[in-house]
Amino acid sequence: MNNFKFQNKTSIRFGKDRLEAELHDAVAQFGNNVLLVFGSGSIKKSGLYDRVIGLLSGMNVVELSDISPNPKISSVREGQALVKNHDIDVILAVGGGSVIDAAKVIASSKFYDADPWELVTDAAKRQTIEQLPLVDILTLSATGTEMNTGSVISNPDTHQKLGTYGPKTPAVSFLDPQLTYSVSKWQTAAGSIDIFSHLTEQYFDNGANDVTSGIMEGLYRAVIKNAPIALAEPDNYDARASLMWTATMSLNGLTNVGNQNGWTVHPIEHELSAYYDITHGVGLGIMTPRWMKHVLSDKTLPRFAQFGRHVWELTGTDKEVAHLAIQKTFDWIKSLEVPTTLPEVGIIDDTYFQDMAESSVMVGHLNHAAYVTLQVADVVHLFEEAMTDHDFSK
Amino acid sequence: MNNFKFQNKTSIRFGKDRLEAELHDAVAQFGNNVLLVFGSGSIKKSGLYDRVIGLLSGMNVVELSDISPNPKISSVREGQALVKNHDIDVILAVGGGSVIDAAKVIASSKFYDADPWELVTDAAKRQTIEQLPLVDILTLSATGTEMNTGSVISNPDTHQKLGTYGPKTPAVSFLDPQLTYSVSKWQTAAGSIDIFSHLTEQYFDNGANDVTSGIMEGLYRAVIKNAPIALAEPDNYDARASLMWTATMSLNGLTNVGNQNGWTVHPIEHELSAYYDITHGVGLGIMTPRWMKHVLSDKTLPRFAQFGRHVWELTGTDKEVAHLAIQKTFDWIKSLEVPTTLPEVGIIDDTYFQDMAESSVMVGHLNHAAYVTLQVADVVHLFEEAMTDHDFSK
Repeated sequence: MNNFKFQNKTSIRFGKDRLEAELHDAVAQFGNNVLLVFGSGSIKKSGLYDRVIGLLSGMNVVELSDISPNPKISSVREGQALVKNHDIDVILAVGGGSVIDAAKVIASSKFYDADPWELVTDAAKRQTIEQLPLVDILTLSATGTEMNTGSVISNPDTHQKLGTYGPKTPAVSFLDPQLTYSVSKWQTAAGSIDIFSHLTEQYFDNGANDVTSGIMEGLYRAVIKNAPIALAEPDNYDARASLMWTATMSLNGLTNVGNQNGWTVHPIEHELSAYYDITHGVGLGIMTPRWMKHVLSDKTLPRFAQFGRHVWELTGTDKEVAHLAIQKTFDWIKSLEVPTTLPEVGIIDDTYFQDMAESSVMVGHLNHAAYVTLQVADVVHLFEEAMTDHDFSK
Repeated sequence: MNNFKFQNKTSIRFGKDRLEAELHDAVAQFGNNVLLVFGSGSIKKSGLYDRVIGLLSGMNVVELSDISPNPKISSVREGQALVKNHDIDVILAVGGGSVIDAAKVIASSKFYDADPWELVTDAAKRQTIEQLPLVDILTLSATGTEMNTGSVISNPDTHQKLGTYGPKTPAVSFLDPQLTYSVSKWQTAAGSIDIFSHLTEQYFDNGANDVTSGIMEGLYRAVIKNAPIALAEPDNYDARASLMWTATMSLNGLTNVGNQNGWTVHPIEHELSAYYDITHGVGLGIMTPRWMKHVLSDKTLPRFAQFGRHVWELTGTDKEVAHLAIQKTFDWIKSLEVPTTLPEVGIIDDTYFQDMAESSVMVGHLNHAAYVTLQVADVVHLFEEAMTDHDFSK
């Protein structure tokens, strides 16, 4: 097992109906000037906006809305002006991963006097400056951002979608599964695939150990079981709750302690999202089985066999179990009623395959830091494979 | 899934050879007056004491040694005098669970002006007072105290062994698996059974959910696999590392989020340790299979079947798998070369069975707060069952 440091101070408030008793104090402990960050009008439609505003009464609340999926640097820039001009003390983010991701970078931008895109492109710079405390109310189970330091920010001008890490996790995260009852089938599926993919990025790692592997196998089974239930019964509390807590536990730093490799499918998918603005989880679902099939080899066979036995509860020879596990992965994604090829999400030709492959290899360090290293030609091949469906079972 | 709050701020420093680079600053951040707490002379024999003293050079170090297994309130009283008289800023505990447990209560006792036994017996009192920061260097994989708020303190005068919880987890915990190479077979086995028992107390709970269950199933497999390896090869780094991190992860609050029941086998074993001062993990190993057999019923069958399938990787009908899982549990404990009956640890008659059963039911609330509630007569029965070995497979 490799050496690691771990510390995560986020205060989790999980469950039903906690906001009325706890939100005001959770925010007010940090000051009176609040920037409320949210996305589209859905929290207004659901009544959550009114609840939150009511609970913040007496505080100075400035609003930043319209944070989009694949959040854009333009929103962060708007936020930077607000936190500076209103001397904001604390940010309250209400929404899914995109809203919270943007809020984290805005939280840093108060202490930076130039364009915040530089905080995204220069990893070291953001670590040296302060970050406002962030309280969030999560409305989508997917990214795990509610208990980690990461954000992913897009810059359409440069076709870039990049990860950035601040010095702090959110101070307080409210996780009420009921707030995800209204999440569409599409977003529920995409979020579940995102959870599955986070596990995959960390499970297939040359530094993975017995402890993190066992934990992740349990988390895999939880998302595999509960995603279809949540799709069929949107207000099934236990299924929504399992997805929500699995999402958080799958990316709060505990599942990758001691890991040594970088991620692979996320950097590849980020190119698809950056070029075509497709739904992140759907892109991951398209690319994951292709990547698994491509990297299955004599060397990786034992790991895929363990994945098949402990995650998919398969029996048989290593080879049988490994192939069948990849097929099961594909079948599970397809069962969530999302597209499984690139043409189904509107990517009908190879115009950007080379550009996207080059960028993913460079940004993701895929040619030297991945579980199985990939060259540009490998990534182009994966995109080509994703043009049609396949048999993954052998 | 039940509502829960979770926050754990401990900074974990896991792995080889970190002390030289990190210990001084980890302690000095809290002040210059240090109480160094340790157990017997084993850290002097191993050279760890000299390393630590060297790294604390320039600081005012006061020592409290001779903390015993099943740590006694007398040691806490000694520590209280030292933290008050020397105006201690920070405690450095070097040792296993007993040393760290005692150090935590000493950390509270600085802010209490009466007998610290009252902090153990009155749960609420300790939560309202301050607690000195604690840094620890763990030398035994077992209790999980390095990342939780709990301690277990014994009072031989009153035959009591009680749990107590402070407001804070350790500030910094150094977990170097190499420091457990010299742990005896006996203590390695006992520690591993302690880990297994912590999982069992939390896994068999009427509030357990898919997420915590899956995580625990992975942790179970990690301890089951690695304990025999560590027994056979005391300096197998990966086995020692897996046991160490499994111990921490099994009792840092993440495995029982949403749980609703209290523990059962620990309160029963605490009576054995309090009356006979036997090794805690060994007592747990004796009582666990008896408890499992006793509470297996039509109602609990599905849970035991899940335990058998996901932990022991068994196949068959629910009933077959459940019984076989209990036998497997017994066999695994026996394979660790520890006693599996009470007479083997010197408890040769039933003199205290009634007293111990009454106390465990009262202290552990077993008659109303357990996974399967137990009356005094049930616990007496479990002690009787533990007088000889049995077939647990049907």
